[in-house]
Amino acid sequence: MAVYTDVSFEDLESFLSAYDLGPAHVFKGIAEGVSNSNYYLQTHKGAFILTLYEKRVDAEDLPFYLGLMEHLAKAKIACPTPVHSRKGKVTGTLNGKPAAILTFLDGVSLRRPTVEHCGLAGRALAELHQAGMDFQGKRANALGLEGWAALASDCRGKSNSVADGLEHLIDDELKFLKTSWPTALPESVIHADMFPDNVLFVDNKLSGIIDFYFACNDALAYDFAVTLNAWCFEPDGSFNLTKGRALAAGYQAKRRLQASERSALPILCRGAALRFLLTRLYDWIHPDPAALVRPKDPREFARRLRFHRNARGPEAYGL
Amino acid sequence: MAVYTDVSFEDLESFLSAYDLGPAHVFKGIAEGVSNSNYYLQTHKGAFILTLYEKRVDAEDLPFYLGLMEHLAKAKIACPTPVHSRKGKVTGTLNGKPAAILTFLDGVSLRRPTVEHCGLAGRALAELHQAGMDFQGKRANALGLEGWAALASDCRGKSNSVADGLEHLIDDELKFLKTSWPTALPESVIHADMFPDNVLFVDNKLSGIIDFYFACNDALAYDFAVTLNAWCFEPDGSFNLTKGRALAAGYQAKRRLQASERSALPILCRGAALRFLLTRLYDWIHPDPAALVRPKDPREFARRLRFHRNARGPEAYGL
Repeated sequence: MAVYTDVSFEDLESFLSAYDLGPAHVFKGIAEGVSNSNYYLQTHKGAFILTLYEKRVDAEDLPFYLGLMEHLAKAKIACPTPVHSRKGKVTGTLNGKPAAILTFLDGVSLRRPTVEHCGLAGRALAELHQAGMDFQGKRANALGLEGWAALASDCRGKSNSVADGLEHLIDDELKFLKTSWPTALPESVIHADMFPDNVLFVDNKLSGIIDFYFACNDALAYDFAVTLNAWCFEPDGSFNLTKGRALAAGYQAKRRLQASERSALPILCRGAALRFLLTRLYDWIHPDPAALVRPKDPREFARRLRFHRNARGPEAYGL
Repeated sequence: MAVYTDVSFEDLESFLSAYDLGPAHVFKGIAEGVSNSNYYLQTHKGAFILTLYEKRVDAEDLPFYLGLMEHLAKAKIACPTPVHSRKGKVTGTLNGKPAAILTFLDGVSLRRPTVEHCGLAGRALAELHQAGMDFQGKRANALGLEGWAALASDCRGKSNSVADGLEHLIDDELKFLKTSWPTALPESVIHADMFPDNVLFVDNKLSGIIDFYFACNDALAYDFAVTLNAWCFEPDGSFNLTKGRALAAGYQAKRRLQASERSALPILCRGAALRFLLTRLYDWIHPDPAALVRPKDPREFARRLRFHRNARGPEAYGL
């Protein structure tokens, strides 16, 4: 959660004057999102999220993110869609920072998703993949193999203070992935951060997917592996095979995984676990003094990584 | 702004089961209130604020605060009113802390209220005073003369590091107020913190008064003095007499100030300025490491206090 920028009503009023939304009836900073400042906005036209993009989001990537959400929303994916100003623009400037207004989605994110929720998440991920196939925007995955190596080197010498043997685990894993990472899998737009925080439910129905600010072009099955890491482990670190099966069944009801994707799953899961291990480790070692959020424990993902290193094949995940 | 307690949807669900509101469709921590954790809650019954009372609010005072809001809302004052559980209770326990659900009010608070807004605020304050006359609850003002002396002594030796001469100003002022504070003015329930943050507007109409967690029994004209301190000074520290006149006219349209109240106004304004000077100074000198909010600058109220010390009579404020 974070609100970095304090926006006055008067500045908001002037920002809103470029849109056809009427005056603000409600405007409240919300404790959500670690990279941006988010505000709940209500006018007679409905409910919106106003997002101020802080330094973590590259302004050059905004057309990709906002264009993708608009594309997906048009294809009936339940995700926020940017509101156009009277001049047709989807971004403006507020308090000197790029800002956008997006539609607000009802729903709450779950702390402890059940098997049924995993099935719904898998299905929604496949629908998102299908709908993204004809999106024209391109963005490389900054948190792929090269990004991981850079993060590992930024953490070198400090990792073992977080957990014994962590540096060796990371180096060994990176070495393995550099030579084994699959490169011929089907690629398209992926969400890349489909954690339970980013999936909304109303009355146990999936009502929305949010936070597309890691979206990029990469292997679809890697996105599945990220989602599996995010949804199918219990708080004690154990893998819940029933949840894995439900996620896969939900996904495959909408998009069948190819044989090459299924057999690559253990490696993709290792890469996904390493990615979150490394970003969390980096934030743990280099805490941002401006952040209002406590860094998440990187060790959870070290445990998941070790699980994946022992997985013999896709059967370990219920596939 | 502050969210101290992280509430999971699952804990919320169990808390909500005591109420007749249906399941949560939206639940978001909001960056508001320094003493409590506040969440925006939406169900098919409407929009609500769920408040968790953190350590700064004494649980024994909750029946007073919640009873007052219910009393005022019944008298058509636009303020939050507590929702009763199926068993008729207005508080429950969530994450081990007292919690209440209150109705949500549309509206935005203004950073730079105009003369017209000051008039509306004055009128609303008088209506609140009238509506509170027959409220039976009692709560002493913990931030009256005795409270000020205690705060001053907690800051002793450190005040001058914040601004030259501050300790002398405070001691001198306390000495004066102890002998001159009026004791025979009309008393009833007062809001005691009617700052622009706590007053909501929709389309330039006053839509609500919030945050009753300093409310208490004290002189009505003292509440007027607090409000004057809060609304009628410009960012550069100067007093805007037109705003003072508008506030007074708005107030007196609903409740005429007595001669004794008018003549006491300069002293009441000095007390009100000292109260906010001291609480801000205390928070500045003793920052709460758990607070997500930057302490407010106490020096603003030192400037206001100096203005009031030079005020010859109620005419200085437009009365």
